[in-house]
Amino acid sequence: MKAAVWYGKEDVRIENYPEPSVEKGQVKLKIKACGICGSDLHEYKDGPFVIPARPHPLTGRALGPVVVGHEFAGEVVEIGEGVTNCKVGDRVTVNPLVYCGECHYCKKGEYIMCTKLGTAGFACDGGFAEYGVFPEYGIHKLPDSVSDDVGCFVEPVAVALHAVNRSRMKVGASVAVIGAGPIGLLVLQCCLAAGAKEVFVSEPMQARRELAAKLGATAVFDPTQCDVGKEIGKYTDGLKADWVFECVGNQITFDTAVKVGGRRAIICIVGLALKPIEVPFLRLWGQEKEIVFSSGYNDEFPTCISYLADGRVKVEEMITARIGLDDYVEKGVKELINNGDQQIKILVTM
Amino acid sequence: MKAAVWYGKEDVRIENYPEPSVEKGQVKLKIKACGICGSDLHEYKDGPFVIPARPHPLTGRALGPVVVGHEFAGEVVEIGEGVTNCKVGDRVTVNPLVYCGECHYCKKGEYIMCTKLGTAGFACDGGFAEYGVFPEYGIHKLPDSVSDDVGCFVEPVAVALHAVNRSRMKVGASVAVIGAGPIGLLVLQCCLAAGAKEVFVSEPMQARRELAAKLGATAVFDPTQCDVGKEIGKYTDGLKADWVFECVGNQITFDTAVKVGGRRAIICIVGLALKPIEVPFLRLWGQEKEIVFSSGYNDEFPTCISYLADGRVKVEEMITARIGLDDYVEKGVKELINNGDQQIKILVTM
Repeated sequence: MKAAVWYGKEDVRIENYPEPSVEKGQVKLKIKACGICGSDLHEYKDGPFVIPARPHPLTGRALGPVVVGHEFAGEVVEIGEGVTNCKVGDRVTVNPLVYCGECHYCKKGEYIMCTKLGTAGFACDGGFAEYGVFPEYGIHKLPDSVSDDVGCFVEPVAVALHAVNRSRMKVGASVAVIGAGPIGLLVLQCCLAAGAKEVFVSEPMQARRELAAKLGATAVFDPTQCDVGKEIGKYTDGLKADWVFECVGNQITFDTAVKVGGRRAIICIVGLALKPIEVPFLRLWGQEKEIVFSSGYNDEFPTCISYLADGRVKVEEMITARIGLDDYVEKGVKELINNGDQQIKILVTM
Repeated sequence: MKAAVWYGKEDVRIENYPEPSVEKGQVKLKIKACGICGSDLHEYKDGPFVIPARPHPLTGRALGPVVVGHEFAGEVVEIGEGVTNCKVGDRVTVNPLVYCGECHYCKKGEYIMCTKLGTAGFACDGGFAEYGVFPEYGIHKLPDSVSDDVGCFVEPVAVALHAVNRSRMKVGASVAVIGAGPIGLLVLQCCLAAGAKEVFVSEPMQARRELAAKLGATAVFDPTQCDVGKEIGKYTDGLKADWVFECVGNQITFDTAVKVGGRRAIICIVGLALKPIEVPFLRLWGQEKEIVFSSGYNDEFPTCISYLADGRVKVEEMITARIGLDDYVEKGVKELINNGDQQIKILVTM
């Protein structure tokens, strides 16, 4: 079968790859579509990063070759012995987490904290391929109202909804979202779905600001042109934001996150900062702020599917390109790296 | 009357100062004892710091001269018009916060977040004096079982208990306390009072480690001699601490706080770091940790008084010296700055 296979930094090959076969407890999918995620770009530019450098304790895989892709939807074409939660012909998406089920955290249902955690598309084969095999526990059925393309968004919506959960955001909150990339736009919508009173978005790119406004932002601001904290203050009696979601991951966006939050604001870090960040402890201490880190998802997939099904989260307009698997590197990864301001989500359709 | 009066950096004078008189809603105390706090040292060495540089919006005071001291106990000698919560002869301590009562935060009872917050001993006259006048709302009666000396600790116990509250520490938690100075030793005891399963203490000074052990620490570690995270791991099935209280306030102690906490650990920052701290976001993100800042207290005074009364929090052994007001600078402030490893809390008795 054809697949996009990571061999090393800047070396992802579209090649013929062995078609996988199901074993007990596994489900084989004909993959229909798969989204390109920021972490796919990280692996391409600077990897191995989430791709394990040493043999993964659950999958045994290390340093590739590995089929990338972890935001996908497909159709069940074969089920292994004992599989009961889906049948051949079902349309599904996959929670790509691979976990041990036995550690302290798995026993509490905190799979994302599993001491042996892996993710399909990094620690074992993922979704940029014609077929894939995944454990039954990761399979989630898609209703007719969620297309294959939209189904690819269940995973990133789960990242956003998990962040809202981790942040303990309350109904009625004034929220600021820093960055209107795919995750920022989904956090915006999840906060509204979770009952935020108002959601402000800080984003330097005009097209993204416009989409944020269209998707429900109370107001959008260009942080290169105004003091976003002051602007949010005008809407909030000077109190600024109660919750802030940092969806980019660098020093500049973190500094903005600090400035736009009010006293006792909770800053949820969703975007991945590879380098240490300098934090003004004196300011955060005096205002008794909190910083909560959110790195994945646990059991948010069913809620995300219902949000996508009933339209509380809209993603169609985030799809800025659809490409074939052959074009994964040139028109997908490289396009996002070089022309990220023109793109939001690129889907690969198989 | 005699008082210790801050005039500027390294300029605190023991001098004759006008005896204050009560106005409506105020209470006059004959002060019996007052503790020297780390923030008094900050003001002496590097101030003005909490002492306002511009006229304070509630007290009008700026840049001294101001009577320092905010951990004190005394006897009511006069009450102003309308005062009902105490009477002449009562033994009391004082919550030194001065707040507006009208802002968004005061209306929610979050006085420590008052936009005009001040503190007696910084923004108006405090406790290193023979007499002091304070608003009725800050007065808390001491039972017979709490001596004047012990009554001076209600304020620092409130700092510790507020940190436990802010951290949302749960019954049964495994806790690590970084630093066994006065606040660390009180956080240790407040965590035990709040139902922690076990509390580990990291402290380089031997005398402080010994006192921490005596006051209930499950185990004490010298961070200059061992890997505290690994040691705590031995007691916790490798899970390390669920909650970590950073009670010092510098890069080294913060780095220790990160290392001794397990996945999803909550790090509560109690010690004041004047400089920005470099935070390894990648590590905290992957482990979904939280950082909660705690800077003062709200309404913890009554609980602290009961903890001191019934012995759940013990402070007698933390008093390493008692001095007179004349010796405030030489045998108090300078002794703590130069021989801090020999001292924990120095009380000035009037």
